[in-house]
Amino acid sequence: MTLTGEQFIGFEPKAQGQTSFQAVNPATGLSIAPNFVEATSEEVHMAVQKATQAFLPYQQLSSEQRAIFLDAIGEHILALGDQLINRAQEETALPQGRLQGERGRTINQLKLFAEVVREGSWVDARIDKANPDRTPFPKPDIRQMLIPLGPVAVFGASNFPLAFSVAGGDTASALASGCPVVIKAHPAHPGTSELVFRAILQAAEATGMPDGVASMVQGGSIEVGQALVSHPGIQAVGFTGSLKGGRALFNLASQRPNPIPVYAEMGSTNPVFLLPGALKERREALASGLIQSVSLGVGQFCTNPGIVFGVESEETNQFLAQIERELPSLAAGTMLTANIHQSYVHGLGEVAATEGIDVLAKGKDHATPNFAQAAVMRAQISDLLQHPELEEEVFGPSTIFFSGKNKTELLAAANSLSGHLTATIHGTEEDLMDYQELISILQQKVGRLIFNGFPTGVEVCHSMMHGGPYPATTDSRSTSVGTLAIKRFARPFCFQAFPEAVLPPELQDANPRQIWRLVDGTFQQH
Amino acid sequence: MTLTGEQFIGFEPKAQGQTSFQAVNPATGLSIAPNFVEATSEEVHMAVQKATQAFLPYQQLSSEQRAIFLDAIGEHILALGDQLINRAQEETALPQGRLQGERGRTINQLKLFAEVVREGSWVDARIDKANPDRTPFPKPDIRQMLIPLGPVAVFGASNFPLAFSVAGGDTASALASGCPVVIKAHPAHPGTSELVFRAILQAAEATGMPDGVASMVQGGSIEVGQALVSHPGIQAVGFTGSLKGGRALFNLASQRPNPIPVYAEMGSTNPVFLLPGALKERREALASGLIQSVSLGVGQFCTNPGIVFGVESEETNQFLAQIERELPSLAAGTMLTANIHQSYVHGLGEVAATEGIDVLAKGKDHATPNFAQAAVMRAQISDLLQHPELEEEVFGPSTIFFSGKNKTELLAAANSLSGHLTATIHGTEEDLMDYQELISILQQKVGRLIFNGFPTGVEVCHSMMHGGPYPATTDSRSTSVGTLAIKRFARPFCFQAFPEAVLPPELQDANPRQIWRLVDGTFQQH
Repeated sequence: MTLTGEQFIGFEPKAQGQTSFQAVNPATGLSIAPNFVEATSEEVHMAVQKATQAFLPYQQLSSEQRAIFLDAIGEHILALGDQLINRAQEETALPQGRLQGERGRTINQLKLFAEVVREGSWVDARIDKANPDRTPFPKPDIRQMLIPLGPVAVFGASNFPLAFSVAGGDTASALASGCPVVIKAHPAHPGTSELVFRAILQAAEATGMPDGVASMVQGGSIEVGQALVSHPGIQAVGFTGSLKGGRALFNLASQRPNPIPVYAEMGSTNPVFLLPGALKERREALASGLIQSVSLGVGQFCTNPGIVFGVESEETNQFLAQIERELPSLAAGTMLTANIHQSYVHGLGEVAATEGIDVLAKGKDHATPNFAQAAVMRAQISDLLQHPELEEEVFGPSTIFFSGKNKTELLAAANSLSGHLTATIHGTEEDLMDYQELISILQQKVGRLIFNGFPTGVEVCHSMMHGGPYPATTDSRSTSVGTLAIKRFARPFCFQAFPEAVLPPELQDANPRQIWRLVDGTFQQH
Repeated sequence: MTLTGEQFIGFEPKAQGQTSFQAVNPATGLSIAPNFVEATSEEVHMAVQKATQAFLPYQQLSSEQRAIFLDAIGEHILALGDQLINRAQEETALPQGRLQGERGRTINQLKLFAEVVREGSWVDARIDKANPDRTPFPKPDIRQMLIPLGPVAVFGASNFPLAFSVAGGDTASALASGCPVVIKAHPAHPGTSELVFRAILQAAEATGMPDGVASMVQGGSIEVGQALVSHPGIQAVGFTGSLKGGRALFNLASQRPNPIPVYAEMGSTNPVFLLPGALKERREALASGLIQSVSLGVGQFCTNPGIVFGVESEETNQFLAQIERELPSLAAGTMLTANIHQSYVHGLGEVAATEGIDVLAKGKDHATPNFAQAAVMRAQISDLLQHPELEEEVFGPSTIFFSGKNKTELLAAANSLSGHLTATIHGTEEDLMDYQELISILQQKVGRLIFNGFPTGVEVCHSMMHGGPYPATTDSRSTSVGTLAIKRFARPFCFQAFPEAVLPPELQDANPRQIWRLVDGTFQQH
């Protein structure tokens, strides 16, 4: 497949813009052909307009048709074969194995949402039947279900060129809910984005989807994304990226004449608490596990454990001594972009220069462009309480270990935290009983609480919550991973006293789709 | 019970402020004792701080204890007896019968949320069990449920002194979800508010709730509400009122360092479409029904039908002629406040002065303070398309009938609409077949679509959706009436790999609460 570097206004390629850019191979620092033309505001407008026109016909398709479309996207992505993996590797420096795994995850995600749509109960149908004899007023027949919000703007993420980009979780869940998408490709992997978007188009054509169900615009500057989020036709935004970027889009969306929801997943430092019993029982495994989790994917995960807490003890000293011994032989790898690498080096420098911070150990250095050297720092909990900025994310393979004198200090540290995607507790069952209060505190701070594991690794399933209180996300009521993500792009709607013939199948008496419904207050599937 | 005009910082009354105000009887224009002291920002801070301290102990109560508290609030409100009804009538000029009905609705709402909490399935529990043998990575055990957001700010509404005020739907659903509340009483009925709040306190004391589970501040100026919404401890806002007020709170909440959700229900003009078959079949009933719905409660409902559409025809002329005959004998009544009355008179004047608008008929006038004269105006659909401001709400007993030449114009009118709480279609089943496109268009504009009824009258049940796209609300994903309202104040949270002993009952294997859960993708109650 040949890359053309154009925008895709639905099925129609366009390249009206005067500005263009190229992808850069972060491992070499060299540009990669072809040129990608930056979208004009006129092109953004056309894409949203087409999405708006496609909304009604797309919404009115049967669930089965939507599911077939989602499955077909996965098949066409797989059919891109090595070209996709090779291009993604050139643009991101991520290893082939990781990219193949991510492709599998992306396709499985599309299939999972297809299943959710086929099964159908996600619409949360509720029926309260009429009672014309009720006094003083008759009770009307009311039937509610979720309906799609309308065209959704999806922003590709830098750190997951497949699973959180063009056909990633946001696109899959928006399309599943019945919303057309206008995708803003991430400028760090425009070629990967075009390949995947062409797969979406092929799937849309093969399965008879309306023109405009998906569009994609390219852009290296922030104006393209701003034009998209400001457009009155856009009804919701999905984003994975930095706090600065996510908050800017949230502000823009909130200041619109008609504000819209922004689901920005902006990462966090994912606190890890190492309780005394766990350090006694398995400090060696914990030290190796932490090094591995911190450096996985060159630390470029939203769930990277960036702050770690423990109580001062002989075991804690041994745990830190082991990291000091093992880290210097760790080769962390090439980062996704030169910007990310510069931010890492700069951020690490700022942290290291903060009062109270000691650099415990650093990983291997390497004379290749954008190579990240892993780093573990240490400080006291009192330093964190005095310098709360130490809680902020330095995107990359580094972490800070904060030690406290006792349980009270550990709880104080937990209480001082802002919102995170995850928190982790390593402990024995005895530790848990002793630290029940820690569980309660952390529950208020995060979306996911992990026991005796590491936060990297986000399972795609019904019960996953990948989100959390601000600043982890702009909407703690939502997850961007797992089947619940579909609900982000829908809203409840009810029919009052409508004749059966006009109602959608989900709300008809006979329940032809056999979905679970709340009928007169009782869950039933018949 | 003696009114003291103080703030209630949890169980503790305070009156540090220097400014005070009195309620005014809108029917006489006279002030009513006692003085109510406006809360200071220090008092607002103390109330939020107490709510923050109460959050964890309140959240950790069993569902049964929360349910008992909600039921007890209802009982203590009922025990206020005639004092409550009399004070509310003095402060709002609403008739006794209406207030008694509203009290019943308020108590039933509390009971309904108690039932929802007792039943327990509202937490949307999801369990995906571990599979340690999965390759390439073992699958962890993940268990998700909704948990409360934290302290909620509730704003009392002017037009429902009981059902949407101190112990109204927002308070009931927030307390049900496990969130403490800090209530800003509406300055138009401060005495009613104090009486109801004292009932909440009695219930809290009688059922052993933590101090701070509910607080209430008074204030006639906007600063008190602003201080509340800006306070970092507040995690969500419930509001029913004007577009201007709701949007201001939304803006404030979005600009916080940590933005929070605002559920502002800001009313709408609730378009009504009279299709040709219906006008042929029963135009007399439609004309009387419309007059009744427009003037119900002096037109002071969020669901008041403020714009009506029909195709030009002989029947339409007869329909309008009937309104012209009947309206002049209609006595609409006293409005809630002098401000609301002035806005009504002013708004009506502006509409009547708009190009193309004819005043078809007016109701009776009356030489009492704040008396509202009902009004029906007429214009062409083309006038609405040229003057979209005619779609905006004039709070009170008035409506505009827009006639179109044909179906195309009716659909164009529907397409031009912004967000509303409701839309209504009056038609025969044949009309519905003929106007299927109208249903699709209106579905995109509203939260509730009514067939052959009137929008006033909002059933409190599982399937009610009282909300809708902006500017009807600031969050179309939520309802402020019905059991689904509880979800506004909760967020998903998941435990990964936690031992059974630490999990809440909702997520334990044995399912001791017998709630409906999604276990490995299957709904089950065992």
